[in-house]
Amino acid sequence: MSDKLIDRRDLHFLLFEMFEVERLLEHEYYEDHSTTTFKLALDTAYQLAQELFWPSFSEFDKNPAYFDGEKTIVPESMHKIWAAFKEGGWFAASFAYEHGGQQFPGMVHLAALYMFNAGNTAASMYLGQATGAAQLIEGFGSESLKKVYMHKLFAGDWAGTMALTEPQAGTSLGDITTSATPVEGEDYYIIRGTKRFISSGDHDLTENIIHPTLAKIDGAPPGVKGISLFIVPKYRVNDDGSIGAPNDVITAGIERKLGLKGQATAELKFGENDECRGWLLGEPHCGLKYMFQLMNSARVHTGLQAIAQASTAYQCALQYAKERVQGREVTEHDPATPQIPIINHPEVRRMLLRQKAFIEGVVSLLIYCGALSDRLRVAGSKEEEDTCRALLEILTPVCKAYGSDVAYESIMLALQCYGGAGYIEEYPIAQILRDNRVFPIYEGTNEIQAMDLLGRKVAVDQGAYLRALMGEIAKTLAEAGTMDALGGQTGKVQEAMEAITEVTMHLAAIGLSGDHKTYISHATPYLRAFSQLVIAWQFLWQSVVAQRALDSDAGDATFYEGKIATAKYYIDAILPSTHTICHLIKSGEDSALNFKEEWFGATHPSVTA
Amino acid sequence: MSDKLIDRRDLHFLLFEMFEVERLLEHEYYEDHSTTTFKLALDTAYQLAQELFWPSFSEFDKNPAYFDGEKTIVPESMHKIWAAFKEGGWFAASFAYEHGGQQFPGMVHLAALYMFNAGNTAASMYLGQATGAAQLIEGFGSESLKKVYMHKLFAGDWAGTMALTEPQAGTSLGDITTSATPVEGEDYYIIRGTKRFISSGDHDLTENIIHPTLAKIDGAPPGVKGISLFIVPKYRVNDDGSIGAPNDVITAGIERKLGLKGQATAELKFGENDECRGWLLGEPHCGLKYMFQLMNSARVHTGLQAIAQASTAYQCALQYAKERVQGREVTEHDPATPQIPIINHPEVRRMLLRQKAFIEGVVSLLIYCGALSDRLRVAGSKEEEDTCRALLEILTPVCKAYGSDVAYESIMLALQCYGGAGYIEEYPIAQILRDNRVFPIYEGTNEIQAMDLLGRKVAVDQGAYLRALMGEIAKTLAEAGTMDALGGQTGKVQEAMEAITEVTMHLAAIGLSGDHKTYISHATPYLRAFSQLVIAWQFLWQSVVAQRALDSDAGDATFYEGKIATAKYYIDAILPSTHTICHLIKSGEDSALNFKEEWFGATHPSVTA
Repeated sequence: MSDKLIDRRDLHFLLFEMFEVERLLEHEYYEDHSTTTFKLALDTAYQLAQELFWPSFSEFDKNPAYFDGEKTIVPESMHKIWAAFKEGGWFAASFAYEHGGQQFPGMVHLAALYMFNAGNTAASMYLGQATGAAQLIEGFGSESLKKVYMHKLFAGDWAGTMALTEPQAGTSLGDITTSATPVEGEDYYIIRGTKRFISSGDHDLTENIIHPTLAKIDGAPPGVKGISLFIVPKYRVNDDGSIGAPNDVITAGIERKLGLKGQATAELKFGENDECRGWLLGEPHCGLKYMFQLMNSARVHTGLQAIAQASTAYQCALQYAKERVQGREVTEHDPATPQIPIINHPEVRRMLLRQKAFIEGVVSLLIYCGALSDRLRVAGSKEEEDTCRALLEILTPVCKAYGSDVAYESIMLALQCYGGAGYIEEYPIAQILRDNRVFPIYEGTNEIQAMDLLGRKVAVDQGAYLRALMGEIAKTLAEAGTMDALGGQTGKVQEAMEAITEVTMHLAAIGLSGDHKTYISHATPYLRAFSQLVIAWQFLWQSVVAQRALDSDAGDATFYEGKIATAKYYIDAILPSTHTICHLIKSGEDSALNFKEEWFGATHPSVTA
Repeated sequence: MSDKLIDRRDLHFLLFEMFEVERLLEHEYYEDHSTTTFKLALDTAYQLAQELFWPSFSEFDKNPAYFDGEKTIVPESMHKIWAAFKEGGWFAASFAYEHGGQQFPGMVHLAALYMFNAGNTAASMYLGQATGAAQLIEGFGSESLKKVYMHKLFAGDWAGTMALTEPQAGTSLGDITTSATPVEGEDYYIIRGTKRFISSGDHDLTENIIHPTLAKIDGAPPGVKGISLFIVPKYRVNDDGSIGAPNDVITAGIERKLGLKGQATAELKFGENDECRGWLLGEPHCGLKYMFQLMNSARVHTGLQAIAQASTAYQCALQYAKERVQGREVTEHDPATPQIPIINHPEVRRMLLRQKAFIEGVVSLLIYCGALSDRLRVAGSKEEEDTCRALLEILTPVCKAYGSDVAYESIMLALQCYGGAGYIEEYPIAQILRDNRVFPIYEGTNEIQAMDLLGRKVAVDQGAYLRALMGEIAKTLAEAGTMDALGGQTGKVQEAMEAITEVTMHLAAIGLSGDHKTYISHATPYLRAFSQLVIAWQFLWQSVVAQRALDSDAGDATFYEGKIATAKYYIDAILPSTHTICHLIKSGEDSALNFKEEWFGATHPSVTA
């Protein structure tokens, strides 16, 4: 185990030097804050992560959440974490004072979540989902719903979930069959249906659990246009706000998963006895639109969760590589000399550098997204608002898909640094690997993210989001272009930008020709190439800030030199495959699309496990 | 669960159409065999894989091997598998009649092992290691050692291991400290030391376990030149061959691992009471040389184990993709139409095709290595022998490292095809993923394989092994060059061959200049680029055979067309990154090598789990 979870110096660099969180203090909304309150919050978060989250990490695996036939039991230490969260007011930290929040900037809050997730993601999920449910009600709920639920959720008295997936409708939400039947003269609907893979779906942490639930009102249009969003509590709430009768939400079971075992991923049956009441949130048939608002931030968080674990794995591997002695320099032929720490072997060093680059690149993008949502809140013009929103929209699938893909690759490398020791559960890496494998899947698989990027975000408004992004990249290129020391990298990012622009136009022509299937069949490689440009841009931007610090002799040269070297590695060694991918797409490589089903080989009739 | 583990049609293609196993029948050693005996053996193996190995797969995970303080208990079904293996004479199947073997060609034996491993790798390991120990004794043992051990091992009465690794000496075998002290007037040595990560290290399957053990005779030279190989039985053997007293080999524990839980991976203490006797195998200080003979075939087998599991995962994912309905064609906008099987989505199809390409490419290479060892056995000239040996030497790290790397990637994709269902232990994919993660580590990490390829195999005898390989590739290129239908692919393989030749010469110049550290720092990217050429060559060769079958109207056009389409995908879509990697190496990309240790970020003093 490492006693270090993240590189706090790097996080400080992002928040204070690159994205200049202090500039938010000029705005009324943030005026009560100061550098001190930000740093205090970050210190407190890190202390919680180190002293509460990380020590419970292994217990969450050894004592999985389980359903005993009556109730769901979560790991003992989760109760302590929940209590600490309540005490610290973390549930509403980034929300407005009027909701009991502390009006922390989104990027500070993201940084705190990054630490919590680096310590124990399964635990962080219980916490995040309470906030998420409250956020939905805040955004779209009636006054009476707000009155009943928001304060309880923000206070951590009650917990929340997101109840979307059904056994027959995972990715295809339009095919959900959970129904909502209006009841004459009442303000509620009767909900009937089964939801699956519901994170934090049941537990013994709080006296009530609030399920924002997608369902279709009887007679609703088919498909996504008929989906409504309901608030379905586990226990009904009396008029005085106290807990009432059970609401016919039955836990059918807790999944036995590859990882995140402390997380109670539940199958829930609503209305088995026709007694499950749900309260409509907002307008009928607009449920998916509301849910997507939450889902977009959930997707950014998924990237955050994934890369936070990669950070912990990297810190563990780094420490191991400095301590574990094995072998000698390739130039040392005397076996009587002592063995050396494995960090000295070029292969190990390459694996560590690759991890560092993935982590610092993705975290930079994530904090940037936090900064964008802060700018959105205090934007001075419609134009700035539009730009921030466009950037957030187009970067969300990158955060989620590229973030989780390279986080897993990074953890693979961390495990590999351990050699045989990586394969045994004595060290934390094996569990991190297991825990992490869900992120390319949940909140929409990475393939769905790729289709979201190419099929929706890139295409919106004749490429408006893309133009907004390219505009930002061009700014960084212009700035970097004035610095001789960054000459090589600037040119390479410029070339990658041109390659992406060109391949996007190539694909747009296919799309405009009406061949949507060919167009969308390039989604995954496109996302990879696109993401590498985005991360390379973040690194170039980081380099500009670091080079400026070096030029001004601000001290801490080791950090800034290491930063520029990391950026150079990403741009020199990882970015180039962008051109390979773009070339492939332009060459019309369409093997998969045209691969006949019978070529995959015959399968026998179904036998399921 | 799939009721299909491997594509038997493809295996048939490799054995009978591409590598023409029947041509071996011309040789005296194989003359008792026939197509019928080969097919019978393969049918029997598949039946065992399906009816015995695969049904126990999940039990191996649910009931891990454990040490109860006195003995090690393995999963119940392993006893049945062992008995079936004994009954079928599988332990010695590929060995000579004189050892009770059946003189099966290596490639048929490999094909059978492929099936067993597709069914249950942890089980196959117990079996393979008995054979391995016997093979060592056959190769290097004295007549008396042969007499005592070989028959028992080949009959499956006793089991075997490979006892190399020690806690302080994993990769760096020269640093082992297990000692061997001669005893005046006796034929044995007293062995003292601790061995770790010993697969099948202890169990209750057989009355004895034979540990080929690396140790240093007192006063031996330091490093690898002082390593000897000993036969250390768990129980001593009486003169009449019966089991004698315990040999002071103590099981310190069974590892709790990420996967392969049915495998008893043991820590063993030899000679805690100074009573552990070991018998020297061959000459003193030659132990590593002997062990490497076994290790080379063990490395090919590691690639086989890895890709066999990938095959099972692919077959499961393929079946799931044909049965699971979700969503609609991208061109279908009516939500009232029924959902379609997910195999129709381009993203799923791409993931399936990628798996298929990895599997068929690597299996082809593995069976080719089997064919090479068969040719070696019956070679008519020293020249042919040298060629076969050179090819085997240079292809071994490709089998092991590329094989296990892409097997894991393939299983990742299989899991991704399942979506959320992939993350729960209800389906077999999660276990396959866990089981499979060891193969990039054991039998020498993939980084060690890369160093073996670039630092040793490529450099031997001024590139003699490499020239042998390029000669074979050139033959295939010449043949493919006569077929118009394969024009595009032939050119691409040719270009990749030129790129590898060029980058090898570039690196050779660095090596010759004496900068060994820079030279070897490119090992891992070089192995990847090199391997892709090798696999692309195998695919081009497959295409030649398939195209010929199509041209001759031999029937089964679906299979041959699918084969050529798969090959085309690999060559068009996967091979091109070879050029990106070669370009990077030639550009002198050396970020990792020159990345300063302090740039990785400070770590705190050690805290281990």
